[in-house]
This record gives sequence, C-alpha cells and structure tokens, in this order.
Amino acid sequence: MGEPKIKRIILDVLKPRTSSLPLFTTFLAELESVKKVEVTLVEINAKTDSLKVVLYGSGIDFDALKVHVGRDGAVIHSVDQVNVQTT
Amino acid sequence: MGEPKIKRIILDVLKPRTSSLPLFTTFLAELESVKKVEVTLVEINAKTDSLKVVLYGSGIDFDALKVHVGRDGAVIHSVDQVNVQTT
Amino acid sequence: MGEPKIKRIILDVLKPRTSSLPLFTTFLAELESVKKVEVTLVEINAKTDSLKVVLYGSGIDFDALKVHVGRDGAVIHSVDQVNVQTT
Amino acid sequence: MGEPKIKRIILDVLKPRTSSLPLFTTFLAELESVKKVEVTLVEINAKTDSLKVVLYGSGIDFDALKVHVGRDGAVIHSVDQVNVQTT
Amino acid sequence: MGEPKIKRIILDVLKPRTSSLPLFTTFLAELESVKKVEVTLVEINAKTDSLKVVLYGSGIDFDALKVHVGRDGAVIHSVDQVNVQTT
Amino acid sequence: MGEPKIKRIILDVLKPRTSSLPLFTTFLAELESVKKVEVTLVEINAKTDSLKVVLYGSGIDFDALKVHVGRDGAVIHSVDQVNVQTT
Amino acid sequence: MGEPKIKRIILDVLKPRTSSLPLFTTFLAELESVKKVEVTLVEINAKTDSLKVVLYGSGIDFDALKVHVGRDGAVIHSVDQVNVQTT
Repeated sequence: MGEPKIKRIILDVLKPRTSSLPLFTTFLAELESVKKVEVTLVEINAKTDSLKVVLYGSGIDFDALKVHVGRDGAVIHSVDQVNVQTT
Repeated sequence: MGEPKIKRIILDVLKPRTSSLPLFTTFLAELESVKKVEVTLVEINAKTDSLKVVLYGSGIDFDALKVHVGRDGAVIHSVDQVNVQTT
Repeated sequence: MGEPKIKRIILDVLKPRTSSLPLFTTFLAELESVKKVEVTLVEINAKTDSLKVVLYGSGIDFDALKVHVGRDGAVIHSVDQVNVQTT
Repeated sequence: MGEPKIKRIILDVLKPRTSSLPLFTTFLAELESVKKVEVTLVEINAKTDSLKVVLYGSGIDFDALKVHVGRDGAVIHSVDQVNVQTT
Repeated sequence: MGEPKIKRIILDVLKPRTSSLPLFTTFLAELESVKKVEVTLVEINAKTDSLKVVLYGSGIDFDALKVHVGRDGAVIHSVDQVNVQTT
Repeated sequence: MGEPKIKRIILDVLKPRTSSLPLFTTFLAELESVKKVEVTLVEINAKTDSLKVVLYGSGIDFDALKVHVGRDGAVIHSVDQVNVQTT
Repeated sequence: MGEPKIKRIILDVLKPRTSSLPLFTTFLAELESVKKVEVTLVEINAKTDSLKVVLYGSGIDFDALKVHVGRDGAVIHSVDQVNVQTT
C-alpha cells in the first residue's frame, strides 16, 4: 500500500470580520495540495466569524495549512474530522 | 493545479418588495460567469423580502456580484457559504 | 453563455373551490413553455384551496403565467422559489 | 409540446369496510390508462377505511376514475396531489 | 395493458410464539407467486408476536395467502399496503 | 421458482463480556453459508454486551446458527428481522 | 468461501491532547492492512480527546491495532461496530 495521505480535513476556524468569506475561501484554496474548499458561516461575533471549513485534497500538509491560515489573521479553533487514505 | 475559482456561493439577500422574484432571479443570472441561480423566499417584511440566493458558476466574481446585486436595489446581508475549486 | 431562462418556479396559489385540482393542474400545463406541473393541496378553506404549485419548463414566461392563472379565477399569493439557468 | 396528461394522482379515499384492500387496489388498476396503484391504509373507522391512493398512468381520466371508484361504493374525500406532463 | 397483478403487499400479522421467525418467514415464501418475504418483529406479547410482513411477487394471490398464513396458526390482523401493476 | 433461502437475518444477541467484539464477529462469519456479518454494540451491562447482529448469506441455516452462537457462550435474545428469497 | 476478514471497525478512542488529530489519523493509517481512516472529534476533555475512529481495510488485525493505538499513548475505550466478510 501507498503512503497515508490526508484527503479531507474539517476545521472550526475563527476569522477576523475584516476579511470577506469569498476572499478567505479562495485564499485557502491557494495552498498547494488543496483541490476544493467549502467554507460555511456558523456564527457572527463582534470581531470574528466562526466558520466550518472543509478542505479536500490529495495529501494535505496540516503544518503548512496552519501557517497558511494564520497568514490571513485567522486561527484554527479545533480540527473536527480527518480522513486519511493509503491508496 | 489550476487557479482557485468560486463554483458556488450562498447569500442571504434583502430585496425591495417592488421587484418580483422571477425578475430578480433572472437579473442575477445575467451576471457573466453565473450558470444557475436558485432564489428562495425566506421571509416577507414590510418593505423587503429576505431571500436565500444560491449562485452556481465556473469562477464567480464576488466584487462584480456585489455591484450587480446593488444595481437592483438589493443588499447582501451575509455570505453564508462559499465553494472554491482549483481544477 | 446563453440567455437566462426560468426552469422551475414554485408558487403559493389560492384557487376557488369550484374548480377541481385535476382540471386546474391540466389547465396550468396548457401554458406554452411549461413541461410539467405538480400541484399539492396544502389547506382547504371555506371558498378557496391553498395550493403549492411547482412548474417545470425551459423558459417559463412569468407574466404570461400570472395572466393564465387568473383566467381560472385563481390568484398567486406568493412566489416561493425561482430557478434560472443560462445554458 | 404534446397535450397535458395526468401521470400521477394522489387521493384521500373512504372505502366501505366490507371490501378488502387487495380487491379494491386490483379493482382500481382495472381502469384503463392506469399502470400502477399503491393503496395505504391510513385509518380504520367503524364502517369505512380511510386510504391514501396513489395512481400512476399515462393520461389518467379523472372523471372516469371518480365514476369507477364509486362503483365499488368508495368515495374520493379529497384530491391531494396531481402531476401533469406535456411530453 | 396487461392484467392487474399484486406485486407487493404489507401485512400486520399475529403469529403464535411457538413458531420461530425464520421458520415462519421461510414458510410464507413457500407460497407460489411469492419471490421475497421480509418479516420484522414489531412487538412481543404473552402468546403471540406482532409482525410486519412484506411480501414481493409477480401476482400474489391474496386468498391463497390468507389460507396459507392460517395453516401456521397465524392471523392477518390488517392489510396495510397493496401495490398493483398492470404491466 | 427456487427453494426459499434466508438471505439476511437480524438478531438481538447477549454476549459474555469476556470475548471481544472483533473475535465474536469473525467467529460468526466462520459459519458456513454466511458471507457478511455486521455486529453493533448496543448496550454494555455488568457481565454481558447487548449486540445487534446482522448476518448476510445465501441460505443461512438458523438451527446451525443458534448452535454456533451458543458455542461462544452467547445467547440469541430475539430474532428481529428475517429476509427470505426464492430466486 | 474465503476466510473471514475484518473490513471495517468503529472504535471509541481516548487520545492524549498532546498529539494532533491529523498526526494521530495518519499514524493509524500506517498500520498494515488499513486502507482508510476517518477520525471525528467527539468531545474535548481536560487531558484527553474522545474520538470516533472508523478504520477500513481488507483484513484488519485487531490485536496489532490495539498495540499500535497504544504506541501513541491512546486507549480503545470500546469497539462499537465490526464488519466481517468472507469473500
């Protein structure tokens, strides 16, 4: 069997309200190894938006993802689901 | 991989009651890069209708969309979901 | 892309109780550009039936539809959903 | 487009308890233009059974259906949904 | 069109507790014209089991079915759904 | 038509806590005529686990199954569904 | 028929909070005979995360799995479902 690769990851993310959802979603999809991103607005707070972020890819690099998310001023609050395949 | 493009976007929109839903939906579909629009009436208020707007396309330009929606006197209240793909 | 066309429209309609549901549904399907109609009885009132009307077509003319519905003594109470496609 | 034809009709029917459900369902399917009938027992009353009747066909004649139902001593209480297609 | 035939019938059956569910289900499937039987235990009473019985076939003879069920000491409490097709 | 054969059977089983779920499930699949077994833990009691057991096969022998289950110290509490086919 | 093999197993696992979900999921997929792993965060406690772990493979070795899980400081709290096939 091949090496285990992250194919899908679901995150709970806090994003500053200054950046728009379309921009943030497009920004996440710029990360290498990401093929599709779906971001859903869960809750609007005073300064942040709480988001459900689903990333699809063929070998997502979580450390690179964490750094990438931070570049836009957002924070991963929790990782809610991870799907890894070896094929 | 290709450039990230917005394939689907879900909006919460306030539309003045003077314009009909069929006209408004057709108007939204006139925006370049939009292939399909589904608009659902969520709530009827005194002067505005609250709408759930789902737009499908192959690279939706959100800035152009915001301007386009405004031309008809409507306002995007919130962006509820964005789907971006790189392929 | 092609011209935007209404492919599906969902209406809340009030119909006088004197006309039967099979007759009214068949009558709606006589409108040019309509391919399929599904009418569901939602509520029975003293003089009117409240109906959920779903019309499918390839370019439904809403103005003609409004006039057509009125010819049978019925009234469109609200337009609940519109689906427009450009292809 | 072709002539509008009733493809499916859903009825709320009251049937005397003297006739069995298998017999009544088979009897309904004997009507010309009917291809499939599904009858569900909804409620058992003292003298009648309340039934949900779904008829599928390719051009169901509602007037003939009403007469046919009556021949077995049953009564159409309401027409709950009608599906008409023109193709 | 062909003759109407019962393709599926759903029964509420009371079975004496002395006979097992696998035996009773196999026994029902021995009836000619029956292709598949699915029996679900609904309630266990002192002397009887209340069962939901779904029979699939290509022209089920309900009179023969009633007699057949009785041979095993069971009783049809009610017929809950009948599906008849003419093709 | 062919002989009626049990294709699927759903059991409520009590298993002593000393044996593991993976071992018990593999043990059940060793029975001849069984193709697939899915065992779900329903409730944990002091000395026993209450399990939902679904067995798929092409002619499951219920008597042999009962004996086989007992060999592992487990007990069939009830048979909840049986599916028999003749083809 | 072939030998019974575990194709899917669902576990309730307690993982120390020091290890990340992406790392833990990838670690589980390194076990031979595992093809896919999906881990969902169920509850966050002071020192541990409660996880739902679904492992897919073609003959999962549960004893090796138990040892493997322990190497990362995690503990199998319960086995919630096992799916075994013989083909």
